[in-house]
Amino acid sequence: MKKNNKKSALEEKEGIHLDAISNKASIAKIKSFRKNQPSVSSLIQGIHNGDKIALSRGITLVESKSKPHAIQANQIIEACISDKKNTLRIGITGVPGVGKSTFIEALGKHLTNIGKKVAVLAVDPTSSLSRGSILGDKTRMEALVKDENAFIRPSPSGDSLGGVARKTRESIILCEAANFDVILIETVGVGQSETAVHSMVDFFLLLKLAGAGDELQGIKRGIMEMTDTIVINKADGKNKQAAKLARIEFTRALHFYPPKENGWIPNVLECSALENEGISEVWQTILNFKEATAASMYENRKHQNKFWLLQTIEDNLKIRFYQDDTIQEKLKELTSLVMNAKVSPFVAAEQLLALHQKELK
Amino acid sequence: MKKNNKKSALEEKEGIHLDAISNKASIAKIKSFRKNQPSVSSLIQGIHNGDKIALSRGITLVESKSKPHAIQANQIIEACISDKKNTLRIGITGVPGVGKSTFIEALGKHLTNIGKKVAVLAVDPTSSLSRGSILGDKTRMEALVKDENAFIRPSPSGDSLGGVARKTRESIILCEAANFDVILIETVGVGQSETAVHSMVDFFLLLKLAGAGDELQGIKRGIMEMTDTIVINKADGKNKQAAKLARIEFTRALHFYPPKENGWIPNVLECSALENEGISEVWQTILNFKEATAASMYENRKHQNKFWLLQTIEDNLKIRFYQDDTIQEKLKELTSLVMNAKVSPFVAAEQLLALHQKELK
Repeated sequence: MKKNNKKSALEEKEGIHLDAISNKASIAKIKSFRKNQPSVSSLIQGIHNGDKIALSRGITLVESKSKPHAIQANQIIEACISDKKNTLRIGITGVPGVGKSTFIEALGKHLTNIGKKVAVLAVDPTSSLSRGSILGDKTRMEALVKDENAFIRPSPSGDSLGGVARKTRESIILCEAANFDVILIETVGVGQSETAVHSMVDFFLLLKLAGAGDELQGIKRGIMEMTDTIVINKADGKNKQAAKLARIEFTRALHFYPPKENGWIPNVLECSALENEGISEVWQTILNFKEATAASMYENRKHQNKFWLLQTIEDNLKIRFYQDDTIQEKLKELTSLVMNAKVSPFVAAEQLLALHQKELK
Repeated sequence: MKKNNKKSALEEKEGIHLDAISNKASIAKIKSFRKNQPSVSSLIQGIHNGDKIALSRGITLVESKSKPHAIQANQIIEACISDKKNTLRIGITGVPGVGKSTFIEALGKHLTNIGKKVAVLAVDPTSSLSRGSILGDKTRMEALVKDENAFIRPSPSGDSLGGVARKTRESIILCEAANFDVILIETVGVGQSETAVHSMVDFFLLLKLAGAGDELQGIKRGIMEMTDTIVINKADGKNKQAAKLARIEFTRALHFYPPKENGWIPNVLECSALENEGISEVWQTILNFKEATAASMYENRKHQNKFWLLQTIEDNLKIRFYQDDTIQEKLKELTSLVMNAKVSPFVAAEQLLALHQKELK
């Protein structure tokens, strides 16, 4: 009994299951592992000193699903959160094949060359893909990975976009505390991931290739409205002429979208990330944006903070409802009746809400 | 005591407060009122016979805030709901002054002239305005009001868009059961009301005036994507030339929006509702739409039904959370801390959700 108690206390503290461990040696091993784990306060200290290993460990705690880790992560976040105004959070989206990794490497190197510290994060609920695009393929971002002033972290694994988005947003806080000036957040745009990234960045960049005529083909609804600048990548060699035409077409297209509240007029640029051309122009546009919208940019961050507060609350209320087994069964039955106009959606909703109320008590 | 009991039983049944009534005469009056109230079954019968008075009384029950009325309303809705395929639900939006009432009257008269039965409803959370736009001003829709084959109902009063939208959606069910073929749903586009209307109609029409150059000015974000056709109203007299230019400009603008899933290509028309010109072309476009998208139109209605089921559930979960006094107080305090980056949104959300959980028990 005593041994069991000891085990569960350990389990609780370490957040790991010890079912497979039954001898003293293993317990000793775990105790020694715990000893080598840096304390929360030393991690906080390390992050503030810009130590990339401490930052990495902090993010691992943020991403962990264990309860004790979550408590430690919250302590670190509370110690790191601040309203620093000298950072820039940039969202980068584009379909697979558009050259996001090459572009991020080129932009990242440009920034470290001019003395900036750059962190690269990703929001991609299909995490295996994202690990591929950022780190898995060793030939990608090779130069940036080795750069002392760059920090690259693949997308956290997580089953839901909400979970991945939360972890990425908390990682931004840690990166900024570790004195990274520019945070690049990549997304491949699965589902609503662009919307999630858009609501955690200051500037949103859409990467495109020159197409075969109708340039709007393949752009998801709502993306054009979010975009602060469109960059046509691979504007090199034979593609140069097509890129020029695409630039004209996109510039015209942007004119037909409602103006932005902050007064910023989105523009279209060409670049070749591979040949390192047009990258400084992209950075100049981002600086122009920062200068033109400075006041509203910080106001926007405040509203993003509020948005994430309410979004998290509402997501959780929904999760609690939809994950209830009794609800799931009844919902399935009623959804079919509602879709085929046998029961009114509102009458069915009332029934389900009454059931949920009963379940909670 | 006995008298009081009698009163509360009546209160409960009639859904009205009797606080002001203390003598037998008044109670007798109410009993007689109740006697004259048609039964639910006779209302259902009347609605199915196309009786406009029964329809009107049914909608009054749907709109009522009293519990016994709600039970009766649900009985009526359950008896009226069906997946009729020969009806058309058309949403009409446009800013005040664009001539929505005149347009609806002209389109409505055109439809009754060709043998259709037309119902006009409205979604407008600022109900006083809407009563004004549909019925308050007696000079408006004069001809349609008198038309035997038309039924006009102002926006239900209600404090929230959710409430108004629900009532309007249930009224559509009743109107269709009363054999109305075409349901026109007007909105002035306050807040998110266009989105609500868009998700309860088959076809969405945006009414515009010829502007002074940049035609996209004044169009709210997201409206262009919802629009199935843009109608430039008041294309008469001196405005004719400007309307032509606006038509060209909007046609070009529409080209720059992503294509619709159902394959429909939105178009731009001109009309003069006042001079009754171009109205039959609008109707022809709607018929073309119905023919081109028939299969996906009914599929769309199924998804709208499901959307409203989930939307109602989620709205109610949120209402229960945000209306809690303890939550309200704590939320106010934490929102300010979160906005100013003193507390992480996720940490604050956790605190509030734990508090809500405690409150529910």
